[in-house]
Amino acid sequence: MFREDILRMSGYVPGEQPQGRKLVKLNTNENPYPPSAKVVAAIKVAAEAGLQRYPDPAATAFRRRAAEVLAADCAAITPDWILCGNGSDDILTIVTRSFVAPGQAVRYATPSYSLYKTLAEIQGVGQDVAPYEADWSLGYRFAQANDEGRPVRLAYLANPNSPSGTRMAPGEVAALADTLTCPLLVDEAYVDFAETSCLDLVRTNERVLVSRTLSKSYALAGLRFGYVVAQPQVIEQLGKVKDSYNCDTLAIAGATAAIDDQAWLAANVAKVRAERKRLAQAVADRGFVVTPSDANFLWCTHPSNEHMALYQRLRDGGVLVRYMAYEGWPAGYDGLRITVGTPAQTDALLTTLDAVMKR
Amino acid sequence: MFREDILRMSGYVPGEQPQGRKLVKLNTNENPYPPSAKVVAAIKVAAEAGLQRYPDPAATAFRRRAAEVLAADCAAITPDWILCGNGSDDILTIVTRSFVAPGQAVRYATPSYSLYKTLAEIQGVGQDVAPYEADWSLGYRFAQANDEGRPVRLAYLANPNSPSGTRMAPGEVAALADTLTCPLLVDEAYVDFAETSCLDLVRTNERVLVSRTLSKSYALAGLRFGYVVAQPQVIEQLGKVKDSYNCDTLAIAGATAAIDDQAWLAANVAKVRAERKRLAQAVADRGFVVTPSDANFLWCTHPSNEHMALYQRLRDGGVLVRYMAYEGWPAGYDGLRITVGTPAQTDALLTTLDAVMKR
Repeated sequence: MFREDILRMSGYVPGEQPQGRKLVKLNTNENPYPPSAKVVAAIKVAAEAGLQRYPDPAATAFRRRAAEVLAADCAAITPDWILCGNGSDDILTIVTRSFVAPGQAVRYATPSYSLYKTLAEIQGVGQDVAPYEADWSLGYRFAQANDEGRPVRLAYLANPNSPSGTRMAPGEVAALADTLTCPLLVDEAYVDFAETSCLDLVRTNERVLVSRTLSKSYALAGLRFGYVVAQPQVIEQLGKVKDSYNCDTLAIAGATAAIDDQAWLAANVAKVRAERKRLAQAVADRGFVVTPSDANFLWCTHPSNEHMALYQRLRDGGVLVRYMAYEGWPAGYDGLRITVGTPAQTDALLTTLDAVMKR
Repeated sequence: MFREDILRMSGYVPGEQPQGRKLVKLNTNENPYPPSAKVVAAIKVAAEAGLQRYPDPAATAFRRRAAEVLAADCAAITPDWILCGNGSDDILTIVTRSFVAPGQAVRYATPSYSLYKTLAEIQGVGQDVAPYEADWSLGYRFAQANDEGRPVRLAYLANPNSPSGTRMAPGEVAALADTLTCPLLVDEAYVDFAETSCLDLVRTNERVLVSRTLSKSYALAGLRFGYVVAQPQVIEQLGKVKDSYNCDTLAIAGATAAIDDQAWLAANVAKVRAERKRLAQAVADRGFVVTPSDANFLWCTHPSNEHMALYQRLRDGGVLVRYMAYEGWPAGYDGLRITVGTPAQTDALLTTLDAVMKR
């Protein structure tokens, strides 16, 4: 019945979403604070207005407001530069299906967002994987022309990257895009916690696409809303691959209220950044090597290399972080990715960590 | 940049969702009544609880309650027979990607739901199209083995069908499934308005999948929630192709409350069926040929064949119905699909129709 590709693949495994026991949840880079009260209010109004009608397929209200906000970083942006998705994972799916067919390939770096691999598998296309260097700089392989075998038709670049939290400067990414012979999807899921964005690159290069999500910095992982910015002729073609009603009425209302509340965003990002600094110092004080992060999480390794045991002991102590392993990556193997939480969550993590490490 | 298939295709065009002017909207088979108040209440509770966390990837709460409800029609069903989607369009996408690869083909009947064609185009696969007979029975072509050229790896069957509103009995569909050499997706978007369902066929045939949506009978087109029922080993593979977080927290909460409120469903369906009967008679009295419908809409043709002009004049008069044309279909060409609305909407339609037809 099923395609061979599907039977063979193992499927994406999302970070654990514990349904029962209360854990200090620092494993999937969610925002530790609830979203803006204006978002909740907008959702209630939309729910009361009745849900019997289909949503606006173009999510016009969101795109209008987003275009105004994003124009601060890229003056060219108008609503026709934006396509909305059911989370930025939906955007990544749309982009993959638009550009790459079986017999062709995608390129991505490793370690990075593991969904890129899954998307390639579902689409039945090849994977041209370029390893990060030990210092999380991108090796020459990523930009290298590779038309032997299956031609690369799309490159994904998480920036800031996960699990490292590291970031390439816009100038470096621009140079990369110029070298690549295929479209470059810059996945800016964590960009609001970073110092710079690549948004302005779309203005001058039609092969650059920038995706964003409201899951992280807007504290709306539960709402499923993301978008991609690219030149209008690119957005128009992507629109053919998007499901007509991919964003629901409540998500459009909530997302529009969220992007409208930039004061909330600024205050939230300030809190997360301050806590990131404190957490990084505290974990380093306990002997971990902490990669400087531009995101809302920290990549931590310990000289003992007992990451799995530490993860498990922390979990037993009620604190859930993410254990991640990258088989075959020459610069390392595994580590812990710890989401930046509230000050109280940091305290709980540190207390548990101290208890665990004393053993 | 783009795949040739994508550049060549025109994209699915959903029914008009007018954003400005108030029209009597009878064009996209939405329910004319708002959803159960319990749905709105559940959404508000979920919104207040905070949306910063990712949703349950498995939509467990919905699947548990749905399995209990659906067991009345198919005793075998437990939660692992159900996969949830961001509307049943998401289910159709997942199923298409799971079964069919370039070089292979899908089969569907025409006239039917035009998304099947779009899904095949996006997936880059062939289309093996079987025409309905003039009486909306399914020709022998649909079940015919066809392994010349591109092998058919999936058949879609809308039952009840759109735009006709006609329905095949479960026994006929079972025979069809037995004859086909590929999986059969029975698209039951409108089934709650019909006399029979094919749900029980999944019990004995692993190649039968039944999809449902909450858009129509539960009045939740704006929420985007659908599901597919199939044997657990089939559901497990489909889960690899589903986006992890395809259903958001609000949709899961709303959908769970909706399927829990079977009393609301029964009352709503009774109202729609009663109005369908009245509307069919009134339109027939005005000279239209009305196909007997098991759905929440009516396929109406007029001996004058002036369907486009009638559509346009109705629209000018403030009533939006759906004009549909099927080029190359031997049994006809075009007609009007009219959604069953409230009694007041029927009155408005009839008044406008009378004025329009007098001209």
